Amino acid sequence: MIRFFNGKTLLFDKNGIRISNDEVHVSGKKIVYVGPAKTGECILFDREIDLNGALLMPGFKNAHTHSPMTFLRSLADDLPLDRWLRESCWPNEAKLDDDAVYDLTKLSILEYLSSGTTAVFDMYNHSEAFAHACVDSGFRAVISSGMNDFDKDPEDIERDYLKLNGFGGLVSYRLGIHAEYTTGLERLKYMVSLAEKYREPCWTHLCETKGEVMGCIGRYGMTPPRFLDSIGFFRYGGGGYHCVWMTDEDISLFADKGLYAVTCPSSNLKLSSGIAPVSRMASAGIKIAIGTDSAASNNALDMFREMYLATSLQKYLLNEPTACPAADVLRMACVNGALCMGLDDCVNIAEGMKADLTVINLNRPNMRPMNNIPVNIVYSGSKENIRLTMVNGRVLYEDGRFFVGEEPESIYEKAERFLREKVRKE
Amino acid sequence: MIRFFNGKTLLFDKNGIRISNDEVHVSGKKIVYVGPAKTGECILFDREIDLNGALLMPGFKNAHTHSPMTFLRSLADDLPLDRWLRESCWPNEAKLDDDAVYDLTKLSILEYLSSGTTAVFDMYNHSEAFAHACVDSGFRAVISSGMNDFDKDPEDIERDYLKLNGFGGLVSYRLGIHAEYTTGLERLKYMVSLAEKYREPCWTHLCETKGEVMGCIGRYGMTPPRFLDSIGFFRYGGGGYHCVWMTDEDISLFADKGLYAVTCPSSNLKLSSGIAPVSRMASAGIKIAIGTDSAASNNALDMFREMYLATSLQKYLLNEPTACPAADVLRMACVNGALCMGLDDCVNIAEGMKADLTVINLNRPNMRPMNNIPVNIVYSGSKENIRLTMVNGRVLYEDGRFFVGEEPESIYEKAERFLREKVRKE
Repeated sequence: MIRFFNGKTLLFDKNGIRISNDEVHVSGKKIVYVGPAKTGECILFDREIDLNGALLMPGFKNAHTHSPMTFLRSLADDLPLDRWLRESCWPNEAKLDDDAVYDLTKLSILEYLSSGTTAVFDMYNHSEAFAHACVDSGFRAVISSGMNDFDKDPEDIERDYLKLNGFGGLVSYRLGIHAEYTTGLERLKYMVSLAEKYREPCWTHLCETKGEVMGCIGRYGMTPPRFLDSIGFFRYGGGGYHCVWMTDEDISLFADKGLYAVTCPSSNLKLSSGIAPVSRMASAGIKIAIGTDSAASNNALDMFREMYLATSLQKYLLNEPTACPAADVLRMACVNGALCMGLDDCVNIAEGMKADLTVINLNRPNMRPMNNIPVNIVYSGSKENIRLTMVNGRVLYEDGRFFVGEEPESIYEKAERFLREKVRKE
Repeated sequence: MIRFFNGKTLLFDKNGIRISNDEVHVSGKKIVYVGPAKTGECILFDREIDLNGALLMPGFKNAHTHSPMTFLRSLADDLPLDRWLRESCWPNEAKLDDDAVYDLTKLSILEYLSSGTTAVFDMYNHSEAFAHACVDSGFRAVISSGMNDFDKDPEDIERDYLKLNGFGGLVSYRLGIHAEYTTGLERLKYMVSLAEKYREPCWTHLCETKGEVMGCIGRYGMTPPRFLDSIGFFRYGGGGYHCVWMTDEDISLFADKGLYAVTCPSSNLKLSSGIAPVSRMASAGIKIAIGTDSAASNNALDMFREMYLATSLQKYLLNEPTACPAADVLRMACVNGALCMGLDDCVNIAEGMKADLTVINLNRPNMRPMNNIPVNIVYSGSKENIRLTMVNGRVLYEDGRFFVGEEPESIYEKAERFLREKVRKE
């Protein structure tokens, strides 16, 4: 059993955010106690973590990632999109095999942990290698299949679905397509049949660019959300990644069906995609989660940056400094992220919840004065404030050091070697 | 003498950015050697800093700050601008005295150092207390006077100008007004006479909001840059902070006169002011520097955030992923910032330059792989990468610890006490 004490605890309740001086006890994978220090009782702890005034809070959930793509970080930036895709992304991604995906996923996991992130919602190929990297590191991930017309065999997805959902508690597998514009009608219908068969929510990149929306209207006479809904794609829920170019009708559809929108503000800025109508969607009742997208496009896997942008871009867009308040953004990053992935037992600090936690160092200049801790976290927080990250009851990151079963230097070197031998030599 | 060795050195040359394995020697306040390790020679160093693969580079210059305002961080966010100013900013700022300004400036200095910042261009009242805080901490600052109609005695500015420019090497004083809209014509003319008398550049908040520009056109029939130029304000150079709402004519004027534009992207977003035409100004030949503005508005004093926004917002604004490349942004943050402040001897790593340096830890996941180090710094860098910050040849920050003559806990407590006793009690 692990005890967190002598600090503050942040949790979400129906009225918003509650910060207390409660301590938290973790046994195995779960939180077993949240409350004042137990005095009259003798508990034998395996470890007592003195927070020393720091803040224990639910970990951030990064709700849209492509982890193995981190090898493309800063490889070719400041290029037009088509040249970037054709000259840098696609030919280099073709060189990835299972081993490379395993190693590169571990590199991303280090960055997630250093950003206080305890789970990611990841879409990529080589899913089994990805899953092994997560399990071996002790990190939690929900995989979203990314079916498209370039897959050799669409039936792999059902095999992965069955196999990876039985992979142990850290990994699960949701159904999804890469996007409408990369997936023909036949394969789309196959995905819908899978969702029907397993009563599963369905996920997709959605309304990321104006071009994507116009293309779908050209093909089917409907926006992507309405078209996908018309073929039953969202019958059991799910949602979209990005959701930048959403019409009022799309927003109503999402709200009516209880679908999630995952916003990726920094990627949308850097790729000139636009600014998602986060405030408008939230006002309509849509649950919003937040993701970084991959380091190829954004280029950091940093939930602090995304939280700041999620709110400040709305203030700019709506010319309204009250838009998207900090407490709402923190809930998006911690609670909604978990809910959209189906991680209903990783949302909060409460007895019975999984111990997916992070510790924020408040004894740093950017957290002072402490006029409002949640606002400080969203508007001023930085990776430097992450003192500890725990996933599934295990400390994976603490005081700058990683405990993921492999030394970071070895993970860095494998990534550099892949680049040297397979990518940069050309 | 201090030796930095066993790492990389980043410097700016005419062709762009050069990264080498050179070592750097610092003697007193200055860089005295940049080159390969000296072998045949016996040099006695006071300290040898093993970079262990890290990157030594010129420090960032934060070219627009109001340091004492950090006490307002997260005190009242997500409010309409007029309520925020009337209910939170102005009444609380009125409570500041010299002692509070001294203590709160020190709090901001800690945050600057943790962001790799080696100098700030600061505008506030109580300039002498501010200057003492900088000198006592070993930190470099250029003060810009902020004359306006609420000053008791405009002649204080000339006294401060003379006194604080003789305050020793760390502090200097430039002339400026708060803004056209807060300074009547008589005082403006007085400022112009001072600039004439001392042949000094002049600075001001400029074109921050659309309302400010429309107001000036209403008063004088000209945009703020053209009006100020018409009364001789820019005769000896200078420039503007923010520069969001610049017309083509304003941009031409700035380019023709060699004026600087200091962009503050995160403040402009969060206060719904807009996005400055950074790419357009740079293309016209204007030198751009970067600032955070105060923690009251933005709410962090983090040059990494500003650099990321300086480029990514241009990509969004122009719908052009090639806009404002990373190398240009790094030059804005390090070189142009120094030049606009008149710190011509703090711009770069070169023999004879002041030793205003920072060390970037490249052995962190967000800096890997090292496909392109400058791009990694601008697009993926974070305060967690700052291993060391040196100002004027002295190490003020290293491995998370501050060496500014006072313990951070004491500085935090003084800020909290001011809040408790003077601000929150109401």
